[in-house]
Amino acid sequence: MSSPAVTSSIPENEPLTVVGGGLVGSLLALYLARQGHTVEVFERRADPRKGENLEGRSINLALSDRGWRALQGIGVEEAVREVAIPLYRRVMHDQRGQLTMQPYGKEGQAIYSVSRAGLNQRLLDLVDQEPRVQVRFNQQCRRVDLRNRTLEMFDAAAGSNHVWPYQHLFGTDGAYSSVRAAMQKTDRFNYSQQYLNYGYKELTIVAGPENSWVIEKNALHIWPRGQYMMIALPNLDGSFNCTLFFPYEGAVSFETLQTPEQVRSFFEEVFPDAVPLMPELEQEFFENPTSSLVTVRCYPWSVADEVLLLGDASHAIVPFYGQGMNAGFEDCTILQGLMAQYGHDWLTIFREFQRQRKPNADAMADLAVYNFEEMRDRVADPRFLLQKKIESKISAQYPQQWLPLYSQVTFSHLPYAEAWANGQEQERIMQRVMPHIETEADFERPEVQTLIAQELAQR
Amino acid sequence: MSSPAVTSSIPENEPLTVVGGGLVGSLLALYLARQGHTVEVFERRADPRKGENLEGRSINLALSDRGWRALQGIGVEEAVREVAIPLYRRVMHDQRGQLTMQPYGKEGQAIYSVSRAGLNQRLLDLVDQEPRVQVRFNQQCRRVDLRNRTLEMFDAAAGSNHVWPYQHLFGTDGAYSSVRAAMQKTDRFNYSQQYLNYGYKELTIVAGPENSWVIEKNALHIWPRGQYMMIALPNLDGSFNCTLFFPYEGAVSFETLQTPEQVRSFFEEVFPDAVPLMPELEQEFFENPTSSLVTVRCYPWSVADEVLLLGDASHAIVPFYGQGMNAGFEDCTILQGLMAQYGHDWLTIFREFQRQRKPNADAMADLAVYNFEEMRDRVADPRFLLQKKIESKISAQYPQQWLPLYSQVTFSHLPYAEAWANGQEQERIMQRVMPHIETEADFERPEVQTLIAQELAQR
Repeated sequence: MSSPAVTSSIPENEPLTVVGGGLVGSLLALYLARQGHTVEVFERRADPRKGENLEGRSINLALSDRGWRALQGIGVEEAVREVAIPLYRRVMHDQRGQLTMQPYGKEGQAIYSVSRAGLNQRLLDLVDQEPRVQVRFNQQCRRVDLRNRTLEMFDAAAGSNHVWPYQHLFGTDGAYSSVRAAMQKTDRFNYSQQYLNYGYKELTIVAGPENSWVIEKNALHIWPRGQYMMIALPNLDGSFNCTLFFPYEGAVSFETLQTPEQVRSFFEEVFPDAVPLMPELEQEFFENPTSSLVTVRCYPWSVADEVLLLGDASHAIVPFYGQGMNAGFEDCTILQGLMAQYGHDWLTIFREFQRQRKPNADAMADLAVYNFEEMRDRVADPRFLLQKKIESKISAQYPQQWLPLYSQVTFSHLPYAEAWANGQEQERIMQRVMPHIETEADFERPEVQTLIAQELAQR
Repeated sequence: MSSPAVTSSIPENEPLTVVGGGLVGSLLALYLARQGHTVEVFERRADPRKGENLEGRSINLALSDRGWRALQGIGVEEAVREVAIPLYRRVMHDQRGQLTMQPYGKEGQAIYSVSRAGLNQRLLDLVDQEPRVQVRFNQQCRRVDLRNRTLEMFDAAAGSNHVWPYQHLFGTDGAYSSVRAAMQKTDRFNYSQQYLNYGYKELTIVAGPENSWVIEKNALHIWPRGQYMMIALPNLDGSFNCTLFFPYEGAVSFETLQTPEQVRSFFEEVFPDAVPLMPELEQEFFENPTSSLVTVRCYPWSVADEVLLLGDASHAIVPFYGQGMNAGFEDCTILQGLMAQYGHDWLTIFREFQRQRKPNADAMADLAVYNFEEMRDRVADPRFLLQKKIESKISAQYPQQWLPLYSQVTFSHLPYAEAWANGQEQERIMQRVMPHIETEADFERPEVQTLIAQELAQR
């Protein structure tokens, strides 16, 4: 920790190696190159910009402040903003098609719907303009030999294996990381993969006439139904990507929806306002895969100064807080800060990175599961929405002392662990305040005002 | 669950396959054969009865009631008892060499020190006498192909690979199971491996003249030192296997003991009565490996009617309750009961097995970590030992209503999860009773008697 603050940008002889050229891997390659390093990126898939789009996951992503900051750091923020759709609020659809709203933050604050494929392609275009980075596509990682520091890659286009040595390896190969799988076999590597009993299915709300949006464009739509939910995010072409989060087994589950008739009848009962907007419902339901939802935790994230895991490879989370990509991008911001501080001292950089970042990744994993319950269940409860309104009033009255948890996570750069701790503390205060609240107007009552002032004074 | 209770012992055409011929694998093979099945066992190591003993772990094991019942089920109980040493109590050694005692159970109740290698060899001898079982040694599992139901085995003696099909596969290949590793890659497989920050080192207290025991033979010896401890179990030849459980890092840790002088000086300070009995201390300390301590949890334990994990492969635990082998052996007892009930209906057998057994394996994993804290720290506390004496008096007075947790785990066949729940409830009662107790005699005081009677009436 007493290393000198080397800021030299003279590259080392050996290029750095990045396994995984998805969102985090391509952004990381740009950060490493801008720091003066030469970088070799191995990506399993074919170049997504060539030929058919074989992209596995078409799901939209919600980009928020942490992600924007990381994009800004390499100067691509504005270009991405042009193709991002701001979502200023949640719109909840009840079983009769009636709507309620909940703003995400203050006036003008939004999360942004972006296409995963589009964003990845844009980052790869930037990588192409960076002479220090070389990307090799169609490279399936067959083996990571941690002892001899080599990668065995199967080149799917050439049909042959090749062994590559590495000096410093960055594993950004996602939730099912091959690099992490090699580390899992080393002694004292803590690891867990935990699945929800829920799967998800992607569906489509089609565009209206002339690519118009048939439900509110600048909102994230939720059909909360207690034990399950559907959500929808807008696309630029007027359509919406819908995702049904649904139990695998049980009375109401993927298991029990076996025929097109069952699907239609179920959707008409529980999502009546959405069904007319989903002309390909039955076909999509049976053609699109049912995907699982995993949380991956592990530690350590590094092997000496030789390997470092980032993004989903070290902390895959469920998608309900819209923070998976943002957390991975923030990894790049944090790493950038450490590189600026410690130069080529990779041992210190890797150790500091995992030490600082692990508690925040764990907190974010907890937050993501927590928000699933909020989205599928609590947002349908008028008392919950009233509580959120009161919280928003407290925040307006005491802006220095109270930022709602959602805003701390989404619209700030506070470490996730601090946000989560603050959020839990605020929730305890709300549990004491809400018994005194029947309507929004009760916030102004003197005893409520006194109680809130007292609670805040005690924090 | 409505399957008929088939008890036919007519074997199916296909032999059953067992991967792993250690303690649980060889016992399981015997149980399967006695049920009428033909069985093929693949074991990674060479036959331990031939040539040099290459047994990885020489550590002694503590056999208790659950293990005995499983051995009894195949008629080998008496033969094993002949080479087992009963341990009736814990003997705690303080830093000045002074001793305190704590009986494990009632008069005559004991856990039994047995040699892992000796027990494994005896089970393999029994397997040899069983015409329905074939054991193949030197078979390293290279790949389990769950889709095609094949095993790729590298025969280390022949130097060649062979692919074996399987119909029903039992994975008893331990904490680092290859069978489980294949299952880990399937969708929705929950898995965790968690290491303690402690490692262990095996050391030896040598025998006295004419193979005599230089400390009490029929006891498990503990040197509890708060953040670490040493234990010793007797061997038949008069020696004791000692195990030091010690932090990997920190002020007092493996990291800080780097020279023979440091080791001797440290041991003389903290284990002064043991050092004179350990003439090879320094040599053993640096020659013997430092081994890690892992808890493995996973679910599901089965794939259709095709694969079932048992023993450490599905529930590896830390060794502090002496229940790892006993839990694995109890798996065989439970499976035997399900085979008797469901015959060849492997789908039901596998599903019922994991459904019944998983909560108990989880409870046992928690108990094992809990007992580490008790052994290394609490047994050195006079108040803790007083509490144990009072508990023992309550148990004597109310034998139908109060069995100490240790006895429930060790001297009963109560499911582990029930034992753990009862134990936690009893601990809460003791927390209310102990403030009224200064000495053992206080147990007889009327207000204490009334309090205990009230607490028991409320359970």
